[in-house]
Amino acid sequence: MLEPTYLAGMLATVTFSVTGVLATRSHHMDVFGILVVGVVTAVGGGTLRDIILDVPVFWVADANYLVAAVAAALATFILRDLIQRRMQWLLYLDAFGVALFAALAVGKTLALGLGASHAIVMGVITGIGGGIIRDLLTGRPTLIMSRDLYASPILLGVCLQLLLLHFALLDAQWAALVGGLFIFCTRAAAVRFHWQMPDLLTIPSRDS
Amino acid sequence: MLEPTYLAGMLATVTFSVTGVLATRSHHMDVFGILVVGVVTAVGGGTLRDIILDVPVFWVADANYLVAAVAAALATFILRDLIQRRMQWLLYLDAFGVALFAALAVGKTLALGLGASHAIVMGVITGIGGGIIRDLLTGRPTLIMSRDLYASPILLGVCLQLLLLHFALLDAQWAALVGGLFIFCTRAAAVRFHWQMPDLLTIPSRDS
Amino acid sequence: MLEPTYLAGMLATVTFSVTGVLATRSHHMDVFGILVVGVVTAVGGGTLRDIILDVPVFWVADANYLVAAVAAALATFILRDLIQRRMQWLLYLDAFGVALFAALAVGKTLALGLGASHAIVMGVITGIGGGIIRDLLTGRPTLIMSRDLYASPILLGVCLQLLLLHFALLDAQWAALVGGLFIFCTRAAAVRFHWQMPDLLTIPSRDS
Repeated sequence: MLEPTYLAGMLATVTFSVTGVLATRSHHMDVFGILVVGVVTAVGGGTLRDIILDVPVFWVADANYLVAAVAAALATFILRDLIQRRMQWLLYLDAFGVALFAALAVGKTLALGLGASHAIVMGVITGIGGGIIRDLLTGRPTLIMSRDLYASPILLGVCLQLLLLHFALLDAQWAALVGGLFIFCTRAAAVRFHWQMPDLLTIPSRDS
Repeated sequence: MLEPTYLAGMLATVTFSVTGVLATRSHHMDVFGILVVGVVTAVGGGTLRDIILDVPVFWVADANYLVAAVAAALATFILRDLIQRRMQWLLYLDAFGVALFAALAVGKTLALGLGASHAIVMGVITGIGGGIIRDLLTGRPTLIMSRDLYASPILLGVCLQLLLLHFALLDAQWAALVGGLFIFCTRAAAVRFHWQMPDLLTIPSRDS
Repeated sequence: MLEPTYLAGMLATVTFSVTGVLATRSHHMDVFGILVVGVVTAVGGGTLRDIILDVPVFWVADANYLVAAVAAALATFILRDLIQRRMQWLLYLDAFGVALFAALAVGKTLALGLGASHAIVMGVITGIGGGIIRDLLTGRPTLIMSRDLYASPILLGVCLQLLLLHFALLDAQWAALVGGLFIFCTRAAAVRFHWQMPDLLTIPSRDS
């Protein structure tokens, strides 16, 4: 069980649980409400993936994911004053979780015998699913609506991962690592430096 | 069919249908739109539960739930001036539906051979699922974001139900009754007396 | 494969993809984010339908739907200045997609051996599902909350389709065509002429 993919899935779950807890910061919530938001955020994207692929939901098959999500949410609640000086943290952690979940979903989809277009869509849905559920629950605008690059790094990273696999340049785990790293680094840079697409590739908002 | 669990499921469906209709109050909606919100609210939480557990969706297997939800929504629409002087009603009814759905979901999850951690999560998701869908549809802040205790009564009640079962203090139906009653009474008291967690167990909102 | 039902499903997917892209107009989004919103909007309602009915999700079984959704989203992005002078367009296109998806879902549900009440609910859920996901993602009020008739045309059109089938007045495809046309024309007229239900059949908003 303790293979890299399993550990990466745990790490992604923990990461998203932390972002769920951080997202409740602007509300006066109690510890149990915060736990629920953390856990739902942590397992939301993968739940969506498994339901659509019609395979057993990962945390129903293995309760360790629930334990990890609860533990991470509790730790974040206790240590909240240490780890969260600025809400910016949420964006970097979200980028990290998105990268892990997207790269893992690509592998899982391909392992089911589905093709590249399905892998791309499942990668994106799994990557952004948990964060969208978190944002809807906590009444925040969904991150996909943010001006900085959000969907672009995921789409490009997932395509990179598929190309590496298609041309057999790397094996499944290394391709996932490279694709995931690309997603995280690009999105983190977009948050840090407010990277945006050239105007040609955006729809300007109507009030601008 | 007319066993207590079945009747409780019907009652929960009816209750949530009523809250869905009441939640549309601040919009100028017509009767059919109101019916749709009522029915979706009524069956939303249980649908989520059944999809995650990969069992047939309860209202697909038994259309009586749909009939009950539609009838309750229509009755609420017709009698709206009698039953709704204050929106507070919605909160008490929501608490009642949440208690029923959570206690029932625990029983259903255990009956599938899953463990306590799954029962807790399914209890919470089923309890809050319909209400969250209602709040998202009608553009209200989700109740889990409310300052009064919301997730806490559910989590504690579900754990109480599991403890009663674990130590064989009560049989399944009585344990569900006690757990559900605990959830309803605690949540209703929280609404009535604005119970909140001690500060130690909350994250204060940043604007306070 | 190139039967009318298949083509209608493609057309509905394309239509909703376009509305997803148009709904991002008020945000400063890049082309990849827009693609994601378009695709999720396009396949959301049907995904919900297939998951609830526990049949293979249509776009997992046939990737052509994904290709069509992506192509439509891209074309809308490129031609956005031509096709979108007024946001009103989004409402008419939504009405068209809703009519197609609702009528198709009725047929699919009946083909599984389920009854009329299930067909009605699945028709409504499939019809409004994609649009609700679009509105939640993009932070718009859900269309079901609009003052103009929205759920009513769907409910009435779906019932019309079922009556035509029940009394064997038309075969499945013609009944779907008539039901769908009814939905589209009624909703489009509601948008154009601000048709609303008589006061007797509405709950007036409390601030009016």
